[in-house]
Amino acid sequence: MRHLRRQAEARDAADPLAPFRARFLRPDRDVVYLDGNSLGPPSGEVLDAVLATIRRDWRTRLVEAWSEWIDLPLRAGGLLAPLLGADPAEVALADQTTVNLYKLATAALEVTDGRDVVTDADNFPSDRYVLDAAARRAGGRLRIVPSDPSPDDVAAALDGEVGLVSLSWVSYRSGALADAAAITAAAHDVGALVLWDCSHAAGVVPVDLDGIGADLAVGCTYKYLNGGPGAPAFLYVRADLHERLVSPIPGWWGHASMFSFAPDYVPAPDIRRFLVGTPPILSLVAAIAGIELVAEAGIEAIRRKSMAMTGWFVELVETHLGDLGARVVGPRDPSRRGSHVAVAHPEAWQLTQALRDEGVIVDFRTPELVRFGFSPLVNSFADLARAIETTESILRDGRHRRHPRQPTTVT
Amino acid sequence: MRHLRRQAEARDAADPLAPFRARFLRPDRDVVYLDGNSLGPPSGEVLDAVLATIRRDWRTRLVEAWSEWIDLPLRAGGLLAPLLGADPAEVALADQTTVNLYKLATAALEVTDGRDVVTDADNFPSDRYVLDAAARRAGGRLRIVPSDPSPDDVAAALDGEVGLVSLSWVSYRSGALADAAAITAAAHDVGALVLWDCSHAAGVVPVDLDGIGADLAVGCTYKYLNGGPGAPAFLYVRADLHERLVSPIPGWWGHASMFSFAPDYVPAPDIRRFLVGTPPILSLVAAIAGIELVAEAGIEAIRRKSMAMTGWFVELVETHLGDLGARVVGPRDPSRRGSHVAVAHPEAWQLTQALRDEGVIVDFRTPELVRFGFSPLVNSFADLARAIETTESILRDGRHRRHPRQPTTVT
Repeated sequence: MRHLRRQAEARDAADPLAPFRARFLRPDRDVVYLDGNSLGPPSGEVLDAVLATIRRDWRTRLVEAWSEWIDLPLRAGGLLAPLLGADPAEVALADQTTVNLYKLATAALEVTDGRDVVTDADNFPSDRYVLDAAARRAGGRLRIVPSDPSPDDVAAALDGEVGLVSLSWVSYRSGALADAAAITAAAHDVGALVLWDCSHAAGVVPVDLDGIGADLAVGCTYKYLNGGPGAPAFLYVRADLHERLVSPIPGWWGHASMFSFAPDYVPAPDIRRFLVGTPPILSLVAAIAGIELVAEAGIEAIRRKSMAMTGWFVELVETHLGDLGARVVGPRDPSRRGSHVAVAHPEAWQLTQALRDEGVIVDFRTPELVRFGFSPLVNSFADLARAIETTESILRDGRHRRHPRQPTTVT
Repeated sequence: MRHLRRQAEARDAADPLAPFRARFLRPDRDVVYLDGNSLGPPSGEVLDAVLATIRRDWRTRLVEAWSEWIDLPLRAGGLLAPLLGADPAEVALADQTTVNLYKLATAALEVTDGRDVVTDADNFPSDRYVLDAAARRAGGRLRIVPSDPSPDDVAAALDGEVGLVSLSWVSYRSGALADAAAITAAAHDVGALVLWDCSHAAGVVPVDLDGIGADLAVGCTYKYLNGGPGAPAFLYVRADLHERLVSPIPGWWGHASMFSFAPDYVPAPDIRRFLVGTPPILSLVAAIAGIELVAEAGIEAIRRKSMAMTGWFVELVETHLGDLGARVVGPRDPSRRGSHVAVAHPEAWQLTQALRDEGVIVDFRTPELVRFGFSPLVNSFADLARAIETTESILRDGRHRRHPRQPTTVT
């Protein structure tokens, strides 16, 4: 174990992002937090932004603060856009991921010839429910391809009846990175649009929506963007689609002239047409502060550290935990995954509880995955070393078996 | 004017709710804030709740705080329910008002024989857009009755083709209180369901949803409930309708077993089926603190003060401003209105700006209304006296004409 800690120290000493760790508020207790892929921790900047919003803007300017707040959904989108490879005018923050997915999937199927929707077996359940509903509403059905599909897997499910392909940029289970460019091209070949869920990619993997010709995307801001629990989600619509797609939920924030209080709905000509109602400002300013910190660090530097972490962690799981029933799920190659490593173990639920008890916070995904998430601005290589040491120690003497076997956790 | 101030002082001295004023954070400048019907001000409790959520729960418990946060949408609904005359199991906080209206209107029209929707000419534009979309989606159309309709006005528009009637409990323009019981009964007579928008009633007018046999309701928490800018909205579904109605947006928070990550959507048997995705927790805890303060004061006491305020203000407008071109819109009788008084004036936009310049914050509604909103926990009778004095002074010497004529404001 000494050797492992020395290795970690050397890596931390050489890490250009190490200073960012101190920008986050530290918990009172000594924990290794490897669940930033579920909920990123609060930075000092987030706390300051929310406090200023309450104490300065809301308290003192009251309703007049709306003259600035009203621009926040688009301002936040503009700040996030470079991290997604998008033009600032193509991104907005609004509503929750599932609501945005519903709006965009439903709008897409109104303009495509095909009515069926393709997704994969391991896509996030909420995505699957909404895609199924959107397909049925359009008179089509949901087609399921294998988990973490290759472009060929997707192509095999495509024909002229397919109007939309929707997958996750990074799988919430395996961590696999989709071959987004090839999948998008295959979908376009049959006239389908593509909608990417970037929840597990935004802020940690450079996403290149414009570059690959993506049509639509959604994602959350509370994982690697550290925007706080339930912070507003984002949506991306490629510029040339703005005028073709109409949201199924015509709210006043999406109206071409929201303050005219006109009796009939006229969608705004730009990304605003996908907004609905008054956004939750406290959560929105927190999201903005989270995005700004990631932008300050730089997505390329974050990606380099993330790959160094997942690459090393995969090796450590194999060398330290391989004989204890643990197995890495998903790609070995860090360039083909996002920033978490899912480890399969037959007693995964109990292991997750034991790790949490011993200060290593990870999460569980049914039926047998432990997810170790690495947030490059928050985590050190020493965190990884301690996670491996603790896991090995627990499994060696069976401490996890003291815990009951029932799953109740949150993504 | 002396006489007016003395009257106000006497009323304030006798006001049992006067101590609540000190519970709110005061702006740095000396303002009379009469726009709590648009955005309620922050209480100390709201600030404390948000701070504790960031500094204690999010920082220290991190993802494990979800074990409590997950209950907040229903806990908040349970706290709000008594203010709406509802059972705690019939109310939840989720999404924004317009999204909730969309969910409930769309779900309602799936189970009714009629497909048309009835609303009134002055209903909030966003409501109208969504109701129109819901009616079209169902194969019907929107029928518009006159503003602030009587039960007879509504009944005249009803027949077996109508599936839903949706109106505001209190009109955002005139402040008129709907005859909700009679309108609901008339709708039920033709087999239609009724969906009330309680945005301008919640927290200031005792709403009696169960008592009048209402079917559905929505509303916001950032007006008289002081939950902060864009705080999550509420939705009400009468208990016996829970299992009949299915949300058009099937999200994982509405699943019968959200953590099973099941491939198919099975709606929860209760109000949770109308939830969609992860709620914005910072804004949600603010809403809860706002609701709790209103509950502590008591909705009946709030209503008594509100009626005393609107009743007195209507008199003052007539006696002090009647010869200056100002005219009260909507009912004179305080028992027939909510808690704002809309005053029509041909130069309403300029008057609104002049009042704000002189520290009386009101808002404008196109084309010629100034809304004076009275939030009984925040406002004193002295505020009303000062608003009248300032308005009279501005109009008498024409100071409002220094301002340009262009409307840009927010509800």
